[in-house]
Amino acid sequence: MEKGFTPIAGGVTAAKGFMAASTAAGIKYSGRQDMAMIYSRIPCRAAGTFTTNIVKAAPVKWDQARIEEGAAAQAVVINAGIANACTGQEGMDYCSQTAEAAAQALGIPKESVLVASTGVIGMQLPMDRIAAGVAAMAPKLEEGLAGGEAASKAIMTTDTKNKEAAVQVEIGGATVTIGGMCKGSGMIHPNMCTMLSFVTTDAAISRDLLLAALREDIKDTYNMISVDGDTSTNDTVLLLANGMAGNAEITEKGPDYEAFCRALRYVNETLSKKIAGDGEGCTALFEVQIRGAATKEQAKVLAKAVITSNLTKAAIFGHDANWGRILCAMGYSGAQFDPEKVDLFFESRAGRMQIIADGVAVDYSEEQATKILSEPEVRAIADIKMGEEEATAWGCDLTFDYVKINADYRS
Amino acid sequence: MEKGFTPIAGGVTAAKGFMAASTAAGIKYSGRQDMAMIYSRIPCRAAGTFTTNIVKAAPVKWDQARIEEGAAAQAVVINAGIANACTGQEGMDYCSQTAEAAAQALGIPKESVLVASTGVIGMQLPMDRIAAGVAAMAPKLEEGLAGGEAASKAIMTTDTKNKEAAVQVEIGGATVTIGGMCKGSGMIHPNMCTMLSFVTTDAAISRDLLLAALREDIKDTYNMISVDGDTSTNDTVLLLANGMAGNAEITEKGPDYEAFCRALRYVNETLSKKIAGDGEGCTALFEVQIRGAATKEQAKVLAKAVITSNLTKAAIFGHDANWGRILCAMGYSGAQFDPEKVDLFFESRAGRMQIIADGVAVDYSEEQATKILSEPEVRAIADIKMGEEEATAWGCDLTFDYVKINADYRS
Repeated sequence: MEKGFTPIAGGVTAAKGFMAASTAAGIKYSGRQDMAMIYSRIPCRAAGTFTTNIVKAAPVKWDQARIEEGAAAQAVVINAGIANACTGQEGMDYCSQTAEAAAQALGIPKESVLVASTGVIGMQLPMDRIAAGVAAMAPKLEEGLAGGEAASKAIMTTDTKNKEAAVQVEIGGATVTIGGMCKGSGMIHPNMCTMLSFVTTDAAISRDLLLAALREDIKDTYNMISVDGDTSTNDTVLLLANGMAGNAEITEKGPDYEAFCRALRYVNETLSKKIAGDGEGCTALFEVQIRGAATKEQAKVLAKAVITSNLTKAAIFGHDANWGRILCAMGYSGAQFDPEKVDLFFESRAGRMQIIADGVAVDYSEEQATKILSEPEVRAIADIKMGEEEATAWGCDLTFDYVKINADYRS
Repeated sequence: MEKGFTPIAGGVTAAKGFMAASTAAGIKYSGRQDMAMIYSRIPCRAAGTFTTNIVKAAPVKWDQARIEEGAAAQAVVINAGIANACTGQEGMDYCSQTAEAAAQALGIPKESVLVASTGVIGMQLPMDRIAAGVAAMAPKLEEGLAGGEAASKAIMTTDTKNKEAAVQVEIGGATVTIGGMCKGSGMIHPNMCTMLSFVTTDAAISRDLLLAALREDIKDTYNMISVDGDTSTNDTVLLLANGMAGNAEITEKGPDYEAFCRALRYVNETLSKKIAGDGEGCTALFEVQIRGAATKEQAKVLAKAVITSNLTKAAIFGHDANWGRILCAMGYSGAQFDPEKVDLFFESRAGRMQIIADGVAVDYSEEQATKILSEPEVRAIADIKMGEEEATAWGCDLTFDYVKINADYRS
């Protein structure tokens, strides 16, 4: 592989020593798995990034405290159905009780248990069912891809597909594996949606570099996707490293660290695109690339403005090459550029075509443009001709089903 | 009236000396009026505020130049159907030619003609039809409410209702009238939408104070509405004052200026609410009041975050008291507050009820909440208990029809 890594099958149990299990705990759904557990045979170094919403769910606060105090992590307990957000002290107590239950079942310290929830805001967890679910999962933990896949299905809410990615890379004389799972796909109740992502690796890497790698990476992956512009109270990305690959520990920035970061990027970018492409009600993954920017930040601001524009998203749903909306969204993004220098292209499996040159429409075929935009993955590429920087953002179209899903009464 | 002014019938021709006309110029629509002209018997002082989008339509650039050079204004020519945006030098030339045509037809200087367009981005104006429309309207200009009403209908695009407001206030020994018309209701093509507002007054007021009054007022009116978060390339608010009321000229800030500002606020707030309540595809005007803020800016940021949240807007469409979405939107707004101190109320003609107290849900009736949220005008009131400042923002619900209108192919 040109980039030095190899995508492989699997998810959160792809890396050595990681096990997973799931169960139907009856939190809110019936007849489906709704709890998952991730476990590492040995304690892990842990990095995490969390929602910037100042309304933070209790599990976010619990995990933040564990990550900040530098606790070793060995297990993660996740439930779908109830977000444990806006639940006050009672909600915090439930995080502690969940960790305690897992600690007892697994024979590990309570501080090494991380927790995550997705679902309805404002409702308290049924602690008896959570505890029973933890007790049921502990003996079922297994290595191999099946456990990871089951876990990735148990954390789904309005997601229509489970989401996994994994990769292998040679580092420090050993094969290092990074794998993860995540869920989308909107924000919250009644759709019980939140962005949760869990990535595991058997790499040996210092805690500082693990944190640095994750913090840097999310800027170009999870932070560059949007389904509806609503930042959840529960968003969480956890990265656990147990060192079992046997590589020489990565302790400084250099070729090994860069190789790890490239492989991590692949996993996180793949998972991010899966979230965007499975956004609530959506029919297409919509990718926007800004090229020729003076700064990376400028490119990001422009790309995100386009993928979050309701009008642009509705046009993508209609397979309509409505370039005025894209230029308009770039114009109100807050980034400076010269509209009269912009080139714009649409691209998909069905082809590639230029739509505007130097800010003015070229004589393109609407029919051909519609053909390009009728694919399940479509891309808009804008070159603003100011420099060499670029950025990519991923979103989805705005559809009748998005409205339907989110207007339905809670029940 | 407590506030010292009296709402009256009428719009852009309510104030003394203002005339209007409309015509079916065949710009893009067929079988309907699509051009309007506003004319004052004598030259006016003019103030204007324009889109902050850096992709600015040609008519915006034309008007900005006239307002900045302090030119007296005597006529405004408006067309629906084509936005004259992203049209390069050719588009600028058409503004000049439109002004020239009106100047000749009306016998006034070209520099005293303002222009405005709303409609498709990227298409050139059919200049022959524009010129013919101007020639047809000049002899039809009339005082009285009928001309103003016809003009307010001619500038509609996806608007379902024409939008007018007028008010009278006693200032400096005379009755001053302020009246206006505007249009919404999304952003652009294929819906040919833009926020355009034209307000006229017979008040005698210095140009500096006229500009100051408008600039201050839009912060709490037009800038506090959102239909879809997409800022148009054409947004324009023009305020023309011809001084024919005969009041002692307002030349300094004081009671007369304040009375003028309160009356202007009424007109602009009324027009703003009409735009929000007639947003593309919407079924309800959604008002959000933030109270108890430490600063006005904080209150505004919070109110605007809630009215632009797609998830909250979809819940309003579903008549669903989904308070978690409101708290979530406040949380990611960027404003600081303590989520655990927030009280939230829903209110409409059907009643008022508290939903959360100190950040936690009270034991409210979902049935009663749904009843309150089933009215055509609904209000959410959040008290964040940090101070005495407040702000109000207006939006609308997110519906199937919004998606339908905006996903349809251009035709």
